[in-house]
Amino acid sequence: MNSVIRPSGRASDQLRSVSIERHYTRHAEGSVLVSFGDTRVLCTASIEDRAPAWLRGKGEGWITAEYGMLPRATNTRMQREAARGGQGGRTMEIQRLIGRSLRACVNRQALGERVITLDCDVLQADGGTRTAAITGAYVALVDAVNLLMKRENLRRNPVVGAVAAVSVGIYKGMPVLDLDYAEDSDCDTDMNVVMNDGGGFIEVQGTAEGHAFRRDEMDALLVLAQKGIGELVAAQRAALAR
Amino acid sequence: MNSVIRPSGRASDQLRSVSIERHYTRHAEGSVLVSFGDTRVLCTASIEDRAPAWLRGKGEGWITAEYGMLPRATNTRMQREAARGGQGGRTMEIQRLIGRSLRACVNRQALGERVITLDCDVLQADGGTRTAAITGAYVALVDAVNLLMKRENLRRNPVVGAVAAVSVGIYKGMPVLDLDYAEDSDCDTDMNVVMNDGGGFIEVQGTAEGHAFRRDEMDALLVLAQKGIGELVAAQRAALAR
Amino acid sequence: MNSVIRPSGRASDQLRSVSIERHYTRHAEGSVLVSFGDTRVLCTASIEDRAPAWLRGKGEGWITAEYGMLPRATNTRMQREAARGGQGGRTMEIQRLIGRSLRACVNRQALGERVITLDCDVLQADGGTRTAAITGAYVALVDAVNLLMKRENLRRNPVVGAVAAVSVGIYKGMPVLDLDYAEDSDCDTDMNVVMNDGGGFIEVQGTAEGHAFRRDEMDALLVLAQKGIGELVAAQRAALAR
Amino acid sequence: MNSVIRPSGRASDQLRSVSIERHYTRHAEGSVLVSFGDTRVLCTASIEDRAPAWLRGKGEGWITAEYGMLPRATNTRMQREAARGGQGGRTMEIQRLIGRSLRACVNRQALGERVITLDCDVLQADGGTRTAAITGAYVALVDAVNLLMKRENLRRNPVVGAVAAVSVGIYKGMPVLDLDYAEDSDCDTDMNVVMNDGGGFIEVQGTAEGHAFRRDEMDALLVLAQKGIGELVAAQRAALAR
Amino acid sequence: MNSVIRPSGRASDQLRSVSIERHYTRHAEGSVLVSFGDTRVLCTASIEDRAPAWLRGKGEGWITAEYGMLPRATNTRMQREAARGGQGGRTMEIQRLIGRSLRACVNRQALGERVITLDCDVLQADGGTRTAAITGAYVALVDAVNLLMKRENLRRNPVVGAVAAVSVGIYKGMPVLDLDYAEDSDCDTDMNVVMNDGGGFIEVQGTAEGHAFRRDEMDALLVLAQKGIGELVAAQRAALAR
Amino acid sequence: MNSVIRPSGRASDQLRSVSIERHYTRHAEGSVLVSFGDTRVLCTASIEDRAPAWLRGKGEGWITAEYGMLPRATNTRMQREAARGGQGGRTMEIQRLIGRSLRACVNRQALGERVITLDCDVLQADGGTRTAAITGAYVALVDAVNLLMKRENLRRNPVVGAVAAVSVGIYKGMPVLDLDYAEDSDCDTDMNVVMNDGGGFIEVQGTAEGHAFRRDEMDALLVLAQKGIGELVAAQRAALAR
Repeated sequence: MNSVIRPSGRASDQLRSVSIERHYTRHAEGSVLVSFGDTRVLCTASIEDRAPAWLRGKGEGWITAEYGMLPRATNTRMQREAARGGQGGRTMEIQRLIGRSLRACVNRQALGERVITLDCDVLQADGGTRTAAITGAYVALVDAVNLLMKRENLRRNPVVGAVAAVSVGIYKGMPVLDLDYAEDSDCDTDMNVVMNDGGGFIEVQGTAEGHAFRRDEMDALLVLAQKGIGELVAAQRAALAR
Repeated sequence: MNSVIRPSGRASDQLRSVSIERHYTRHAEGSVLVSFGDTRVLCTASIEDRAPAWLRGKGEGWITAEYGMLPRATNTRMQREAARGGQGGRTMEIQRLIGRSLRACVNRQALGERVITLDCDVLQADGGTRTAAITGAYVALVDAVNLLMKRENLRRNPVVGAVAAVSVGIYKGMPVLDLDYAEDSDCDTDMNVVMNDGGGFIEVQGTAEGHAFRRDEMDALLVLAQKGIGELVAAQRAALAR
Repeated sequence: MNSVIRPSGRASDQLRSVSIERHYTRHAEGSVLVSFGDTRVLCTASIEDRAPAWLRGKGEGWITAEYGMLPRATNTRMQREAARGGQGGRTMEIQRLIGRSLRACVNRQALGERVITLDCDVLQADGGTRTAAITGAYVALVDAVNLLMKRENLRRNPVVGAVAAVSVGIYKGMPVLDLDYAEDSDCDTDMNVVMNDGGGFIEVQGTAEGHAFRRDEMDALLVLAQKGIGELVAAQRAALAR
Repeated sequence: MNSVIRPSGRASDQLRSVSIERHYTRHAEGSVLVSFGDTRVLCTASIEDRAPAWLRGKGEGWITAEYGMLPRATNTRMQREAARGGQGGRTMEIQRLIGRSLRACVNRQALGERVITLDCDVLQADGGTRTAAITGAYVALVDAVNLLMKRENLRRNPVVGAVAAVSVGIYKGMPVLDLDYAEDSDCDTDMNVVMNDGGGFIEVQGTAEGHAFRRDEMDALLVLAQKGIGELVAAQRAALAR
Repeated sequence: MNSVIRPSGRASDQLRSVSIERHYTRHAEGSVLVSFGDTRVLCTASIEDRAPAWLRGKGEGWITAEYGMLPRATNTRMQREAARGGQGGRTMEIQRLIGRSLRACVNRQALGERVITLDCDVLQADGGTRTAAITGAYVALVDAVNLLMKRENLRRNPVVGAVAAVSVGIYKGMPVLDLDYAEDSDCDTDMNVVMNDGGGFIEVQGTAEGHAFRRDEMDALLVLAQKGIGELVAAQRAALAR
Repeated sequence: MNSVIRPSGRASDQLRSVSIERHYTRHAEGSVLVSFGDTRVLCTASIEDRAPAWLRGKGEGWITAEYGMLPRATNTRMQREAARGGQGGRTMEIQRLIGRSLRACVNRQALGERVITLDCDVLQADGGTRTAAITGAYVALVDAVNLLMKRENLRRNPVVGAVAAVSVGIYKGMPVLDLDYAEDSDCDTDMNVVMNDGGGFIEVQGTAEGHAFRRDEMDALLVLAQKGIGELVAAQRAALAR
């Protein structure tokens, strides 16, 4: 099984080169350009001093996310969702995932009646856009919350842990970490894993593309994911320390 | 841990009572009313003799699904999606899941240039509507394909396995099978599992609602799911044998 | 003229077999499955304790209706209105008719600042879905209002009469009662009549499909409608007495 | 009963002054400004040399209608439907009625594979816009068809009769003809009647606004409608003779 | 250059015949039918006693405009924007231009917390619909504001100047004033100019259709526009004096 | 007049620092990140080998543009147009301007039956996004066309000139070049000018924000625009030469 060569030449448990560039644009409270290899996602965190309607008067806040792809982020041009008249199913699924994932590391009482919106816009796609988005959005969120704490003199930090995500899959029979587009479009199983820095699972979404996957394959994928996310959390910390 | 009492009084590894009623309506090629306890979903399978645009001339077919809820299937009335002007993110996410799950048990070459649409409409909701929908849609699909094979004298059966789904979750610290609404709205982790009759995984979608879940919790959930799906596949077989 | 045989073999003034099943689903304040032969419509009545915007502060309530068809309620699958992005003209016309008809039997001052929504969803269609919907919605409305009167200790019953509806038409030259799909798609004139239990007309909507209809034909149709509605009002009473 | 005075001072069986101005705009094949008193509707008939999709290759044509109101045709400004993102239920109901009514006087085989669209746009509203629209659209249709017959050298006239419409209602207990806005907003029963020049009924749509109407009231309304439509057909003929 | 003959035979600096008919419809506070030759636009001004959300409590008002074309205002029928589900780019561009232009002659403090909506609906198009709309909307605005001043006893007139608009362009090499459709569809440069009665520019929108235009051509066009607008302002004054 | 200090300290006829970065993303045939100071727009050019419907069989191509802003490109977050269900009036106006401007430098016969779409997405906004977009899109277009010429062995270059754009305006009474956001939101007149490298005007769009502008002010603005565009064309050339 180990004789399979990945299109990129990477080892089966090797991430693509990861870069996390903070303060990429200047208006947002947090603004991060995250790259997983050729996948580049601009993640901004915007704070608004209002509770959403269903939380008004409850003294807690909300974290939400929106996801988009520039029309030519991909190999062939996709129609712009704004021109098509609405967001498609894939977009909605991804932005709901990003929102849930980031809410998992926030204490919403400590946030108070505020909304933080994480906008994740894919400038260039090469597989794994949603996992890059989650990983980058976390850093943008931390930057925004730090600004907020200083500005509003908050006593408690609403961010209570780190969150990162990676994809794993079975490519030509071999479990591999962090699929690029060439692997993603030719793999049997594709799994997106979101974890926190305590090793807990926040989301696991596995899909059999070709044949159903066995329990032992799933176990191998989870081990790979755990390793990759450990490295991504380290990269987040390094970026935040700069 | 086993001292937790489920709201329904069920054992932790006990499904709700399952019923699968075939030929529930008369126009569709397959029509099944599936009940998981108080959750009732009408699943119809409709065959059209046309390939979707992107498969034209390739000699293969497609399986797709749509999902809806009647406005008062739930405890408080929800706005009708047709009146609101489109399907929401949750609906799209669920119907994409149903479609992927059912495609996993179909040989699309053997189906030929046809589209089978699985409409899953929730008449009454009490948790687990998507897993009931997948389990019922499989039976509607088999009925529709059997009709097609007879009518068109197909040589090979396009249905190449069985598919069923169940939810599992961690309720007050205890892993439980087949969550009803009372459990679903109060659980820490919620996981939907789709498997085939060979014990292979087709989809695993786990979400931490309260705290992140540990690897050993995930393992316990997968064992419960495997048991439940075994029983659901048996119920499907019994229904199809009637 | 009387030598014409109806496709169903019914006499010209004979309703299809009517059934009215109360408490069909459990969440709604009123829930009725009504069948006119093979036409089956699920009617639910939902009470909300709010006045619509334009009645706020006036001390009176509102009755409204929505109508839908499951995609495979009919012989060939219709596109789901939620997927198409909105309700079509036929749907709007029908739900406006249902709403007006039911408002005719309600004292809106006695109802107080509440909205009752009648959702009529066609599970299976065989002609006459709108008349079945009105007839069933009335029973769901009564169940909901009785619950409300008990719960809120209302002094006056907001329901001040009964309402039922039936279609009549001219099939191969013969006036007939309660058209099924085979007749409906091959008739010259189609008329939907809504009446109250006092013999008053609430709505009369007659359309010449083939040739214009004469005054004497119209008179014959109105007589048939009156007879049919008398029987439907009796069926409503019997159902409510159970 | 005859002691009731109509707001306009008209006799109970008196139409408002009717005017039918042909060639009101110059681009359309037929263009008519019709006035029923202060109600003014611009009706244009546009011919396109294409069958609609569902009639292609069948050798027959189609008549369709669209209806609109300028935002300030009414006493208070209404939101523009194009700005609101779609046509409302009332608009759809009316344009479906206009289309059905005009189709009733056309032989679609004689028309050939063509579509005639009748656009009825209300410039000023004072009650009865849909009946004025039908009455004016008929004249626009005749002008367009005459042009077509000359241009294409058709042998048979596709227009096989005349169609006109009027509203009748019960105002303060008195049956009256051709309700203006003051009456319309204060009447018990409102009925729109479409008839052909042979005295046949094409559409009858009666609605009880206040109390249910009795059979004898309906009979009185139908007699008034018949009288009014006779006068409108004469006005159409006179306009077409100019 | 002066040997070019315009399709209409007009001199290069000659407007089409202009007519401004006030009180064209009766419900609106201002209602004007403006004609530039065969271009006819109905302009109504509607006053509402509310500030738009973003101006609430600021003591000032707003002027906004909407633009529409009847489907058969043009040579071939255009789809109705309400039926298509929204306003197109050209419509939005034009109504934004009309709104900006009219705001330029209004003192919004003097208007107080009111909104005036200018609806410009093209009954018949022959080029220059937006410039006719602006010119006519000004007169409707003045009528509405005069009514308002009387009704509300305003001390200051919110209208502080006159605004008119005209198109100019280069047709077969010759600068011409007030293009009709024949010229518009065959010209090299098309420029819409909005000016006030003091000779100041409010909007200049020039577009090279064929070849880029030179500075001296632009100068010639601006001179023509200035002449034309002088005559239009005189026509507005004459209409308002009647 | 020259004593007015611009917020940025620039001279009245000084552009912001301009940068044009080619090959910014890798999938598009042309991909340029253009910056006018803090305004940053990603412009991609995508080639498709199809004529739009209305040009099929005519042997010529089309250039079109789409414009978007990331939600947090601006100081306060704007709602995503895809989430709002469609593009607003400002977006449509801008993308129509970009498309017209770029078509002015292309020979559509030489292009053949192809569509080039210019997507201009604003990553960060500080005034002048539309002029930056046009200036950058030109460079992306040239890169795409050069690739096409090589790939398809075209004989003639479809690009027949250069196009650039800049804004000018009157800020505190002084005509200035290339307004940033601070100036744009506080200026009296705002004019966008598009020119080609031959000094010809392609678009001039001037708007009086505060008071109407005089002819001599307009002349001063056009002189500034001409100077600025000369420098932008030089910057385009330099970028293309790298």
